[in-house]
Amino acid sequence: MSSGGCCAEVYSCVFDYNTPRIALIKSRKVGLLNRVIQLAILAYVIGWVFVWEKGYQDFDTVVSSVTLKVKGVAATDTEDLGFRIWDVADYIIPAQEENAFFVMTNLILTPNQTQGKCAELPDSSTICISNSSCTPGYVGTHSNGVQTGLCVPYNESVKTCEVKAWCPVENDTTVPMPAFLGAAENFTVLIKNNIWYPKFNFTKRNILSNISAEYLKTCVYDPAKHPFCPIFRLGSIVEEAGESFKDMAVLGGVMGIQISWNCDLDKKHKYCVPKYSFRRLDNRELDHNVSPGYNFRSAKYYKDSNNVESRTLMKIYGIRFDILVFGTAGKFDIIPTMINIGSGVALLGVATVLCDIIVFHFFKKRYYYREKKYKHVEDYEELVSN
Amino acid sequence: MSSGGCCAEVYSCVFDYNTPRIALIKSRKVGLLNRVIQLAILAYVIGWVFVWEKGYQDFDTVVSSVTLKVKGVAATDTEDLGFRIWDVADYIIPAQEENAFFVMTNLILTPNQTQGKCAELPDSSTICISNSSCTPGYVGTHSNGVQTGLCVPYNESVKTCEVKAWCPVENDTTVPMPAFLGAAENFTVLIKNNIWYPKFNFTKRNILSNISAEYLKTCVYDPAKHPFCPIFRLGSIVEEAGESFKDMAVLGGVMGIQISWNCDLDKKHKYCVPKYSFRRLDNRELDHNVSPGYNFRSAKYYKDSNNVESRTLMKIYGIRFDILVFGTAGKFDIIPTMINIGSGVALLGVATVLCDIIVFHFFKKRYYYREKKYKHVEDYEELVSN
Amino acid sequence: MSSGGCCAEVYSCVFDYNTPRIALIKSRKVGLLNRVIQLAILAYVIGWVFVWEKGYQDFDTVVSSVTLKVKGVAATDTEDLGFRIWDVADYIIPAQEENAFFVMTNLILTPNQTQGKCAELPDSSTICISNSSCTPGYVGTHSNGVQTGLCVPYNESVKTCEVKAWCPVENDTTVPMPAFLGAAENFTVLIKNNIWYPKFNFTKRNILSNISAEYLKTCVYDPAKHPFCPIFRLGSIVEEAGESFKDMAVLGGVMGIQISWNCDLDKKHKYCVPKYSFRRLDNRELDHNVSPGYNFRSAKYYKDSNNVESRTLMKIYGIRFDILVFGTAGKFDIIPTMINIGSGVALLGVATVLCDIIVFHFFKKRYYYREKKYKHVEDYEELVSN
Repeated sequence: MSSGGCCAEVYSCVFDYNTPRIALIKSRKVGLLNRVIQLAILAYVIGWVFVWEKGYQDFDTVVSSVTLKVKGVAATDTEDLGFRIWDVADYIIPAQEENAFFVMTNLILTPNQTQGKCAELPDSSTICISNSSCTPGYVGTHSNGVQTGLCVPYNESVKTCEVKAWCPVENDTTVPMPAFLGAAENFTVLIKNNIWYPKFNFTKRNILSNISAEYLKTCVYDPAKHPFCPIFRLGSIVEEAGESFKDMAVLGGVMGIQISWNCDLDKKHKYCVPKYSFRRLDNRELDHNVSPGYNFRSAKYYKDSNNVESRTLMKIYGIRFDILVFGTAGKFDIIPTMINIGSGVALLGVATVLCDIIVFHFFKKRYYYREKKYKHVEDYEELVSN
Repeated sequence: MSSGGCCAEVYSCVFDYNTPRIALIKSRKVGLLNRVIQLAILAYVIGWVFVWEKGYQDFDTVVSSVTLKVKGVAATDTEDLGFRIWDVADYIIPAQEENAFFVMTNLILTPNQTQGKCAELPDSSTICISNSSCTPGYVGTHSNGVQTGLCVPYNESVKTCEVKAWCPVENDTTVPMPAFLGAAENFTVLIKNNIWYPKFNFTKRNILSNISAEYLKTCVYDPAKHPFCPIFRLGSIVEEAGESFKDMAVLGGVMGIQISWNCDLDKKHKYCVPKYSFRRLDNRELDHNVSPGYNFRSAKYYKDSNNVESRTLMKIYGIRFDILVFGTAGKFDIIPTMINIGSGVALLGVATVLCDIIVFHFFKKRYYYREKKYKHVEDYEELVSN
Repeated sequence: MSSGGCCAEVYSCVFDYNTPRIALIKSRKVGLLNRVIQLAILAYVIGWVFVWEKGYQDFDTVVSSVTLKVKGVAATDTEDLGFRIWDVADYIIPAQEENAFFVMTNLILTPNQTQGKCAELPDSSTICISNSSCTPGYVGTHSNGVQTGLCVPYNESVKTCEVKAWCPVENDTTVPMPAFLGAAENFTVLIKNNIWYPKFNFTKRNILSNISAEYLKTCVYDPAKHPFCPIFRLGSIVEEAGESFKDMAVLGGVMGIQISWNCDLDKKHKYCVPKYSFRRLDNRELDHNVSPGYNFRSAKYYKDSNNVESRTLMKIYGIRFDILVFGTAGKFDIIPTMINIGSGVALLGVATVLCDIIVFHFFKKRYYYREKKYKHVEDYEELVSN
């Protein structure tokens, strides 16, 4: 390329083909080493990237909708309430939720509360001897109402500060044990879960097409015998997660029902099936158990014939079941396939780099090989100045 | 490099420049082929990676909050209930939810239930002839209560086992058809949706800044005429999804209102707008319709002047609308741009690999070219041993 | 390679080692330039990819469960209601939600509504002079009921169309100001948050193991002094987000409590701690404030001794607190480490490309260097034809 000019350069650029010059070393040792490294890289690319990680597929994450239906009846017989039946409308609160349901398992009931004045629940800050211990207008973080400033008898032995509140105040110092509605163990829940992979326009539901209405009437989920039955016994859910329902029912808790929909959409539609697993989500650290369980307060409001409002306060302990739907679906797509083949080819170049290092630095006769690979070009300026 | 020594190697390593030696083949065919392949790769990199997939942008997924307000009044006139008006507080249950709302469309009402003893609902397992068919204490999965062991008349023709339960038991064998609150079709919902892209600190809401309070009072969403009106007629939502509201109202169901916020934040703020679409989420497989629809039970509790509790049990069928907010925003960022330019340059190397395969394996005169590209280096050991 | 044959080719393919021939240019300028570019690339790979982006780690996103407990009592004293105490069961609606809770801060109460006929709330479309302005059976989008066709007095000065509705109709034209339950500012909420990284089987909760039950009884979250106390004052949450609780309480709104769990699981368990931050999610554009705030309607139902149903309608304004849990955890893994080292090595090749461009296009003596790098190979066909 002794003659220059812009045209010549462009012509050369378009019509000349540049290919690296190669030293072809006839050495069985290095040749084999090179091929072994290349094979290892190829095995990694095919085995890991393509077979294991399914690098030839495009992926999508699941969009899911869940509806639930709990069934079961429990009977209780206590001194306060007498014999009483509890059904779905009584123990599911609120009546419907998205992706979750709450089942009452224990209860502290305070019936016939009305707005008025009464003695506060005794604790270290409310027990008093005379009115001077009580501050009119004071509201503490655990108070049930606003103090009036009087000190009144709570029962025969104890006096506490009087409060304006819903009276009588709730006494939640002792939690019923065993749990009031321990029979909830035998309730069942039907979970209807529809999934959708938007990218592939693939929909399916967890009531598989080979499940008959007959089967649904009698089946109960069992990981070994009935893995696709969408009806779960609450007690079994808790036990599958390694917990005791009897213990959990007393103070409440949060359970996770995980539905996993990992599907290979290159296979047939029927091989895409749900997998259920169960976990306790509010993990108790047994040695460090600050404010355990799950409870909340709710009230039913009544009016008597004189239009005076009263309420039944309920401190409700129970188990909240969260339905967590996970899932990734893959399907063959040309773009990720190309990208992964491309980067696989690029990785093969690493074999040459590794072999070069071995041949030109660790071989006894490295200088002989170096001479063949390298061409020494002197610095032009030094060359001229010499 | 005949003289060794550590210093010389380090010196050479720092100050020498290694560049591959190139065979410059003056062949129009191969030169052109090479450039065409390179152009194809460049077109892919620019066209697909940069223009289509926006490889010069950093991405973030949406964080969203939704509030809802349903409006509408329905009137019903039945034998049991007489003329009755239903408003928002009556048919939205529960009163507020996150990202969802439920509208009652059908109803089986069982008023004046009290705790007591009564005949079970007749079905194959509860119909009896004598007391011997009934087991005291038995509770089945579909029972309304606990059997007392007696066989009592349910009506003039049928006898069933007596249960301790909320009496009289609910009779849900026939679902009202057409739906009790079919007028829900004309209810409207205002959806207020605020989105946030944390990475770009970009916030927007679906009530666009050019929408006036006047327009909001009268507009109703229409995909063609009013695509940005955030007020939706429930009937239109269901019809847009290709379903019949009249059918869906009878047994209930789950609808998805999808709001898509795919934004290119390199463009102006005003071009980032929501796109609404609608889907039925509980897809019915018509040929295999096990336990269709959506319903739940809820109760209102009352006390009479004698402090006896009664309740009105409602089996509520209806449509749950889930608001699903999707979105990805992209904005220019130097890091992904550099990475994609880098991998694009690396891909250009594939052109040389492909051309080499063609030239050195398929050309008639491949041996001529090979001689120029390859330098044969004999194995030193063999060389010496010879 | 003058002698061909398939066997020879395969033998050569397996046992020969191909390595590119290199021109070793002894030039300090270019040599240094090359090393500097390589160092810059190395610094990027190590500094950005490995140290900053933690390229040696595998990542997982958080799975979370949240339970909440609000505490606090407020007293109100109005003409209509008299002195009244509001506790958790009164102002939290619904009683339990997943990942969210709603606190009532303002209220429009319409007690003793019964099904009947009464005058509609006056507005531009309901005010009438004679029956001819009213259409029997008409229901507007803002109607409270179905028009009967009569024009009746609403009060002494105004006549409106009569409707069949829950009567008397609600009058929500004036919102109580300051907010009815402004005292909600001092309520506190205990947030219990359990997280799980499924890939690493790592669980933790926001009540850290060094927090004692004693500390929990008295502490309140403060970003500087008590950053790990899980008890939050509602007023402080709103103020941290830069809003005024007093303003927000009047019309309601939506607040986000963000818990961020970004953890480096290569470090000790105790360094994985939650970080709290607060945002208002329903951002008001002050200059364009269409339908601001957050409210909904709910009702309590009563029956009198004659079995006539009445209800207390509540238009409830309040603040919904959404708990948003974000998090990514990283842990050392061999696969991403290998991939990033690989692509880092590949990037080093860019240094050669850049240096080549400089040496062979911009150096004064580029033709001298080009001669050393390039070997010109004439087109065989042209060669023959000549």
